[in-house]
Amino acid sequence: MNEKIRYAMIGGGPGAFIGAVHRIAARMDNLYELVAGCFSSSVEKSLETGKEIGIANDRIYANYQELIEKEKQLPDNQRVQVICIVTPNHVHFAPAKMALENGFHVILDKPITLTLEEAKVLKHLKEQTGKELLLTHTYTGYPMVKEARQQLASKKLGNIRKVYVEYPQGWLSKSVESKQADWRTDPSKSGVAGAMGDIGTHAFNLAEYVTSLQVVKLCADINTVVENRRLDDDGAVLLKFNNGASGVLMASQVAAGEENKVKIRVYGENGGLEWHQEDANSLVLKHLDEPAQILRTGASYLGSFATHNTRVPAGHPEGYLEAFANLYRNFALTILYKNQGREVPKECLDFPGVEEGVRGMAFIETVIASGQSDQKWVELTI
Amino acid sequence: MNEKIRYAMIGGGPGAFIGAVHRIAARMDNLYELVAGCFSSSVEKSLETGKEIGIANDRIYANYQELIEKEKQLPDNQRVQVICIVTPNHVHFAPAKMALENGFHVILDKPITLTLEEAKVLKHLKEQTGKELLLTHTYTGYPMVKEARQQLASKKLGNIRKVYVEYPQGWLSKSVESKQADWRTDPSKSGVAGAMGDIGTHAFNLAEYVTSLQVVKLCADINTVVENRRLDDDGAVLLKFNNGASGVLMASQVAAGEENKVKIRVYGENGGLEWHQEDANSLVLKHLDEPAQILRTGASYLGSFATHNTRVPAGHPEGYLEAFANLYRNFALTILYKNQGREVPKECLDFPGVEEGVRGMAFIETVIASGQSDQKWVELTI
Amino acid sequence: MNEKIRYAMIGGGPGAFIGAVHRIAARMDNLYELVAGCFSSSVEKSLETGKEIGIANDRIYANYQELIEKEKQLPDNQRVQVICIVTPNHVHFAPAKMALENGFHVILDKPITLTLEEAKVLKHLKEQTGKELLLTHTYTGYPMVKEARQQLASKKLGNIRKVYVEYPQGWLSKSVESKQADWRTDPSKSGVAGAMGDIGTHAFNLAEYVTSLQVVKLCADINTVVENRRLDDDGAVLLKFNNGASGVLMASQVAAGEENKVKIRVYGENGGLEWHQEDANSLVLKHLDEPAQILRTGASYLGSFATHNTRVPAGHPEGYLEAFANLYRNFALTILYKNQGREVPKECLDFPGVEEGVRGMAFIETVIASGQSDQKWVELTI
Amino acid sequence: MNEKIRYAMIGGGPGAFIGAVHRIAARMDNLYELVAGCFSSSVEKSLETGKEIGIANDRIYANYQELIEKEKQLPDNQRVQVICIVTPNHVHFAPAKMALENGFHVILDKPITLTLEEAKVLKHLKEQTGKELLLTHTYTGYPMVKEARQQLASKKLGNIRKVYVEYPQGWLSKSVESKQADWRTDPSKSGVAGAMGDIGTHAFNLAEYVTSLQVVKLCADINTVVENRRLDDDGAVLLKFNNGASGVLMASQVAAGEENKVKIRVYGENGGLEWHQEDANSLVLKHLDEPAQILRTGASYLGSFATHNTRVPAGHPEGYLEAFANLYRNFALTILYKNQGREVPKECLDFPGVEEGVRGMAFIETVIASGQSDQKWVELTI
Repeated sequence: MNEKIRYAMIGGGPGAFIGAVHRIAARMDNLYELVAGCFSSSVEKSLETGKEIGIANDRIYANYQELIEKEKQLPDNQRVQVICIVTPNHVHFAPAKMALENGFHVILDKPITLTLEEAKVLKHLKEQTGKELLLTHTYTGYPMVKEARQQLASKKLGNIRKVYVEYPQGWLSKSVESKQADWRTDPSKSGVAGAMGDIGTHAFNLAEYVTSLQVVKLCADINTVVENRRLDDDGAVLLKFNNGASGVLMASQVAAGEENKVKIRVYGENGGLEWHQEDANSLVLKHLDEPAQILRTGASYLGSFATHNTRVPAGHPEGYLEAFANLYRNFALTILYKNQGREVPKECLDFPGVEEGVRGMAFIETVIASGQSDQKWVELTI
Repeated sequence: MNEKIRYAMIGGGPGAFIGAVHRIAARMDNLYELVAGCFSSSVEKSLETGKEIGIANDRIYANYQELIEKEKQLPDNQRVQVICIVTPNHVHFAPAKMALENGFHVILDKPITLTLEEAKVLKHLKEQTGKELLLTHTYTGYPMVKEARQQLASKKLGNIRKVYVEYPQGWLSKSVESKQADWRTDPSKSGVAGAMGDIGTHAFNLAEYVTSLQVVKLCADINTVVENRRLDDDGAVLLKFNNGASGVLMASQVAAGEENKVKIRVYGENGGLEWHQEDANSLVLKHLDEPAQILRTGASYLGSFATHNTRVPAGHPEGYLEAFANLYRNFALTILYKNQGREVPKECLDFPGVEEGVRGMAFIETVIASGQSDQKWVELTI
Repeated sequence: MNEKIRYAMIGGGPGAFIGAVHRIAARMDNLYELVAGCFSSSVEKSLETGKEIGIANDRIYANYQELIEKEKQLPDNQRVQVICIVTPNHVHFAPAKMALENGFHVILDKPITLTLEEAKVLKHLKEQTGKELLLTHTYTGYPMVKEARQQLASKKLGNIRKVYVEYPQGWLSKSVESKQADWRTDPSKSGVAGAMGDIGTHAFNLAEYVTSLQVVKLCADINTVVENRRLDDDGAVLLKFNNGASGVLMASQVAAGEENKVKIRVYGENGGLEWHQEDANSLVLKHLDEPAQILRTGASYLGSFATHNTRVPAGHPEGYLEAFANLYRNFALTILYKNQGREVPKECLDFPGVEEGVRGMAFIETVIASGQSDQKWVELTI
Repeated sequence: MNEKIRYAMIGGGPGAFIGAVHRIAARMDNLYELVAGCFSSSVEKSLETGKEIGIANDRIYANYQELIEKEKQLPDNQRVQVICIVTPNHVHFAPAKMALENGFHVILDKPITLTLEEAKVLKHLKEQTGKELLLTHTYTGYPMVKEARQQLASKKLGNIRKVYVEYPQGWLSKSVESKQADWRTDPSKSGVAGAMGDIGTHAFNLAEYVTSLQVVKLCADINTVVENRRLDDDGAVLLKFNNGASGVLMASQVAAGEENKVKIRVYGENGGLEWHQEDANSLVLKHLDEPAQILRTGASYLGSFATHNTRVPAGHPEGYLEAFANLYRNFALTILYKNQGREVPKECLDFPGVEEGVRGMAFIETVIASGQSDQKWVELTI
């Protein structure tokens, strides 16, 4: 594909973390061009970021409304095709809605919205408009996570019985004050959940993605460990899946000393598998009465999904930015194939979107409700 | 100590697993002499095992009653001092009770009894008779588990907030028929719990030991995954500790492909620690904003408990049998010091006993009750 | 820096591996723009690659001579500033020489040339012209490799005594025929060395970089294991450094089953350190009588070099492409700072260049000479 | 086997390290009884150790000569059958010779003697007398080392091409003064080699054992790093094997921060394998174009040698003491089978003996000669 997709970014100004990550991801495979933006609620800061990145001043906008309205009026070969929203949670829904309504594809950081209701609105809009939406659940962009899903789908390990997914972080162990910490612990900006929304949704998404199953009910222990924090910073959740399998989800931001240790283990009748981000280029398959196997990124024996999402030969580790870039790449390829009226290969279609967003919001609302309930199991419904 | 303790073994005949482990553990440090036994309900098998081990025929008994009665009548310098019971769970209480009542010290495999009530009776008897009782919760015999406990007790990592303990096994993934599997899945021999009694108690004991905390309530998801199995083979438990910390306990015997993967992680305000049996000679300490540290068995910087429980210099790995032997060694030293009227060093007194047995039974009964309840939290009381 | 450096690429057409890696590295940090190229000796293939990447047809050239001559005539604001050469070894020297002579900065894949003599010519030219030259010894771009160098330079571990560096690969275990394998095993294209030139130089460079020492003599065992191969595919080298330390360098392309397992260990009087690419985001420091420490990319306690070369917070693994991009980024920043007449921060200046190229060629020639000699030690001189 | 072998120990008194290890190893499987000894050149210390262990005073001897003479005169059912020698190297030959000449089996710590000549004398004597000799090269007692040998012998990985064996320790990084350090750095007690004799021989033995090959020539870099030390404390050796394979042996006692990190990697035409003592219960098999496999102690798929040398089920780690005990167990079983006139199973016969002792001494003498030579390769001959 030698065509580049023009995109605009909302958020991602000075001091932001994830905006820069999105920009690197977009550049990695040469499929995007960042040509417009509204990087901050402060126009000066927005101009500053724009200058740093190399965006013409007339494509820096005062707010997302202006961005969408003005871009809409540009000719086809100038107008951005994708709007990327990397603001705190409370500024996801309105710009995403407006973007879809005005004919733009949308990239959104997770969680998709502040509430399940909003997520459903976006889902409806997405279906109505036929536009594409990418929700950046990074961890499903890792080749070996995709291999895990493909391995389990092949049923070689048998029906799934048990899922352990965990996401311990330690950076909120103290009462932190920082741009990153502040909005994440503010209910008006983060939503009803803190850690459960920020990282619990990642773990939930990872579990459903890898297993191709859906959680149908759950029982949550939700904690606010650091005094005076207004949202949860820790939790553990018992899960039941739609095939009868059970699971445990652990997510904490007060696991002092942990960095960002995403890990998943799944067990079927004949064996299990294990992936953790620290050793992202390996996938361990375990077998009853046979030696465990270590599958490696870039190897010839991997399935089509892992292979499609790898850039360099085995032994040259790819990491978080490449996983993120895989989401961007598949999203771009899907748009480009569709633009050309061609069938989109299934490997390209494999990116998280509005469905995952809706399920993530259902998870958030259910897990917080369960945390406050005396009832053991709460059903997760959409 | 150049004196050896004479002991008798009940159970541990042909086909048994743990009996042989006990015997190796007893031999390791030259503190015991096995001189009597009733290794099987079949006298021939018992004689066979006795011959193999090198025990005089007149010290092989038909049943535990005979063993206790006849040994009691032997002169001081011949009579066994300790009776070691390695039978299935339903044959723990009666011989242990009779042994204590007749003046013998007792070594018991876990769980201590079939019911909490029985455990309390043993506790009462133990206190009344002043005899010693060792309950072989092996994992607390590992030097780095002891170091973990000492590190946490020192409060360097701050107050404990979170505990993750897990014990996945895969050997019951299929409908197994074997001597080992049969009694463990038979309620009349195993008690109300399967996996939760067999390995869940180990995980529970490990969590309480390492943290010096007590579980006060729990919420359990208990599953019988393999069809027609009569007891649980899988479970996950949300925990609350007496200091307010929360935890998760996972134990499964259907985690296909796993061997015996005991692991514990604990997080305090300033950092965390991690130990897993696969790398038993290491203890990882994690710190906020400082590099993690790998503490190693045999190193000069370890605390007195780890040091006391290590035989060889750093870099010479010790394993499961040495951990088991540490229990035996400390039990023997405690008896020998007391026999000599000397104060027992605290490192020697540090072995699991009747208290841990009572708590283990309370865990088993509570966890099964919680598994059957619609109520979220069930209190763990004695 | 909001200015982009325009560059041209020689080589990197269809079927090439390293060309695509260079292009990703150049894009990662938004500091380069690829605007011209001669990607293949076939003009059609070159145009094909140019189209794929999005380069105007009039900037695709038939050969490197044309590229350099025509670009030289372009106005300042269009002309490329950097020429990147990613051809097989025998097409390094001539274009690099011509590029320097005509006022371009140069990026070269390693080894720098076919012979030590050629390398010295480039060094002389580089000094004469004042142009910059980047030699892409990727492994020194890893943040934790930079941290290792800084740790050793701080002397906390004491004077260096021992260096083990290894680079086992397995991809040439059989008699492979592929574009990648063919030129590497052809003396007219690869030079006097096979594995020693391809990966041995990486290991050599890594050892000298991390230790800040220089090898003064060596003793090599050089092997051609696969029948009919015309160059070495395996070797091991005893090393002596200029401070008296000794070392071992192992490089093999017939270590069947290995991918690309670069690893270095260095020991000083008080401790040692260990880095391996498989776990690239960790650096292990080992101490006499103290616990080992695991330093992690992105952590606050790291030195300025590691920090400067990291993009994402701790726990978000960066890999091979980011390491590669670090070379590109530092090279660009050096040029940009100098263009602006500003002092270049030492962290930016820290990239491999012509000095490393000369030493690499000296290593290659010495190691092959030693391999053919009956003499134990051969001096490495420039 | 319900018979126990009576043995005497020479050396292993207060302050010794390896004597206690031998005693634990002998007790582990209930096949030995320690009934006599001469634990120290000081009679008081010897009596003290004897009392601690529980040996009758009349079986404590003033010196090895007395021990052998007096034991020889005891009746068959009292006399020791085996004499175990755990003194420093210079007190190996004479007692071993006298023991063999007087009809005793011998257990010797490595290296077997002070010189190759002495080793050959013992070999001759051993053959003449028909007595057994065990040389405690511990690392070949590990089940997964035995599995490695069996895997390679099966030729599934193809002909062996490359061997890397390493043994870094750090405990002699400083000028240490201790009982353990003193004799090891004293040529009159240790022989011509320091580190090469103490741990280099272990690495050499491991390489020959695992590969079933023999080293035919070598080229050594031998260093004395710590000032005023009288013997080598570090070395690296290039190896050539009798099938044409090449190898590297690294052994150091000044690798500051390392404990006792024995590791071996072997590569054949189709794949490789890796074992390291830190993870002693795993053996990694690597394959060209297939996932690597992790074989585990106790698993059902292992060969007969690994299985024979394991005591507990998979997931219950065995360590250094069990590996040591495997040597003792196989030695005892060999004696007992032979005593009964039965054929000895090949798994029992698989222990290091006088042949390995002779080769070890040849290695020591050759490696030191090579270290002092300007010649590249020195042949290793017996």
